[in-house]
Amino acid sequence: MRYAVIMAGGSGTRLWPLSRQGTPKQLLQLFDGKSLLQLAYDRLAGLLPPERILVCTGASYAAAVAQQLPELLPENLLGEPVGRDSLGAVAWSAAVLAERDPAAVVAMLAADHIMEPKAKFQAALRLAFEVAEQSDDALVTMGVVPSYAHTGYGYLERGEELADFPGVHQVRRFKEKPAAEVAQQYLASGNYWWNSGMFCWQARTLLAQLAALLPDEAAKVSRMAADPACVPAVFATLEPNSVDFAIMEPVSAGATPAQVVAVPLDLDWRDVGGYVSLAEQFSVDADGNRILGCSVSLAASGCIIINTQPDHVVAGLAVADTLIVHTDQATLVADITDAQRVKQLVDLVRDRVGQDFC
Amino acid sequence: MRYAVIMAGGSGTRLWPLSRQGTPKQLLQLFDGKSLLQLAYDRLAGLLPPERILVCTGASYAAAVAQQLPELLPENLLGEPVGRDSLGAVAWSAAVLAERDPAAVVAMLAADHIMEPKAKFQAALRLAFEVAEQSDDALVTMGVVPSYAHTGYGYLERGEELADFPGVHQVRRFKEKPAAEVAQQYLASGNYWWNSGMFCWQARTLLAQLAALLPDEAAKVSRMAADPACVPAVFATLEPNSVDFAIMEPVSAGATPAQVVAVPLDLDWRDVGGYVSLAEQFSVDADGNRILGCSVSLAASGCIIINTQPDHVVAGLAVADTLIVHTDQATLVADITDAQRVKQLVDLVRDRVGQDFC
Repeated sequence: MRYAVIMAGGSGTRLWPLSRQGTPKQLLQLFDGKSLLQLAYDRLAGLLPPERILVCTGASYAAAVAQQLPELLPENLLGEPVGRDSLGAVAWSAAVLAERDPAAVVAMLAADHIMEPKAKFQAALRLAFEVAEQSDDALVTMGVVPSYAHTGYGYLERGEELADFPGVHQVRRFKEKPAAEVAQQYLASGNYWWNSGMFCWQARTLLAQLAALLPDEAAKVSRMAADPACVPAVFATLEPNSVDFAIMEPVSAGATPAQVVAVPLDLDWRDVGGYVSLAEQFSVDADGNRILGCSVSLAASGCIIINTQPDHVVAGLAVADTLIVHTDQATLVADITDAQRVKQLVDLVRDRVGQDFC
Repeated sequence: MRYAVIMAGGSGTRLWPLSRQGTPKQLLQLFDGKSLLQLAYDRLAGLLPPERILVCTGASYAAAVAQQLPELLPENLLGEPVGRDSLGAVAWSAAVLAERDPAAVVAMLAADHIMEPKAKFQAALRLAFEVAEQSDDALVTMGVVPSYAHTGYGYLERGEELADFPGVHQVRRFKEKPAAEVAQQYLASGNYWWNSGMFCWQARTLLAQLAALLPDEAAKVSRMAADPACVPAVFATLEPNSVDFAIMEPVSAGATPAQVVAVPLDLDWRDVGGYVSLAEQFSVDADGNRILGCSVSLAASGCIIINTQPDHVVAGLAVADTLIVHTDQATLVADITDAQRVKQLVDLVRDRVGQDFC
């Protein structure tokens, strides 16, 4: 049986003050009133029934997730007591599903990606399920066919094409975020895809690889799956780790006899990491401003203006390439090219004004 | 008897969104909790008793003025039914005081100036009263000894020094706001003072000059002084005009036998016209930022940040020479060098968002 787990654990400091403690990025209802999580859930409509869609999130967000996704079954909401990076979510989900259904095939999906059109996403996901179902030792990763030489994403180097699945390739190597020149070479070669961080596998395959590479961690997640009462105590003992670093990279490098293969996602894909990628969803005016909410501007260009308060107006005058974000508790004004430093700024706000504003 | 009238009629659009309909510039309590109007009133303490201090303001601000100045006598609060520029306030005040006290000597003071120290201001004002008292045909204007070649103020060209009053000069000409080179020449010559827009005269002298130059207007203000019930109807029939244009310039050019003389104000003086002059009152940090209210910044320089909301934080990140003003209803972000265009922006806000925000 096929399952999907939407990974919705991030806190999203890079979108402060939109995202704050309690309202992380994936729960912000900025897209015609829907959140990225709701969009991720809606993208599965028609492909999987509600009883086979799970969400793995921080326990503190569980109530908000349940409210945003009324169709989600209570037993399909996995609340992590603490964050333990992507390996925590991936390994725990696999163990929980293997306990319920030893033949479970699981897609691990991201809550904070924009992917369009839905039909192409579902076709790629269907293919990923088929590949995973046919092999007991394949870990499927989803590779995005790059549209330009992005330096903010990791890359997958493609190896041989699978005989049974045209267009699906073995993964030769995982590559870190490249320098601009290297990214250009990747793009020109046609042999590299963006690493989407989304996966598909048989639950027992993933658990077997985990047992081979990190036996202690495998024992912990099996224990939690068998006895949910011990989750709060055991989850905290997991080592924070990323799936790529702990499993996908070693396996692709030959650490176990299993193999990593990549299914292409050839569609409009974007990891909503910060304000710039978020604003690509907004319409753009003649002066290159991208605006959400009540705002008026004069002689402003290249700005991103976000105002969550309908009874408040944000006015921009003769500013260029400036990010303005207004919420009930805070207003951020930043140079767009330095917007990634917002984490540092939030630390200052915490120190000088207080945790309540962060 | 000596009187002072504080002219507090302006609407102060240039300080939007701090100043708005109902809360003009002079009523904003930004200076250790006091407004410019309260500072102007306090500056007279010890020089004149409350019963001889008047405030002339827009009728719609009268309640707020009374609240800010509890010592102000109700009969000393002159509420203009409509704005008719400075001549309206000056002529009506003179007529009202001449009706109460035919020998009234009146200082016309501005509500939106910063002047320090108080002792120097009072000494200059005392001198202005003495000069006005000694002459039935002198219109005294107050000239600020310039500290630099300001291009945003008008200038007074000094003529002969008065024999009886060392340091007090006849005014040869009024000069418009000069170009930078001309302002430098003015400063170097030592013969020019800034035109402060503050005056002192016998009420009957001002009314006599008005009668000689604009007899219709003189008749209207006399009628209003004699019969307060007709103020609403008659005030609106006054022609909007500035005192300088209607009286001071023609008299200094010889249009009547009277003379214009200037008493020097040799102190720290500033007309709070816009955000830049306002912010000169704030302390400046190591990066040249001037900040009022709850704000945190990182890598920001040369900014003016004003936040009137104590339960809200304004955060600046990597922005330079940017004006950020946050109030309950609106947030303005502007390039400081273009901040004077805020009037245009307010027109846009009125059209697109609504009058309530202006």
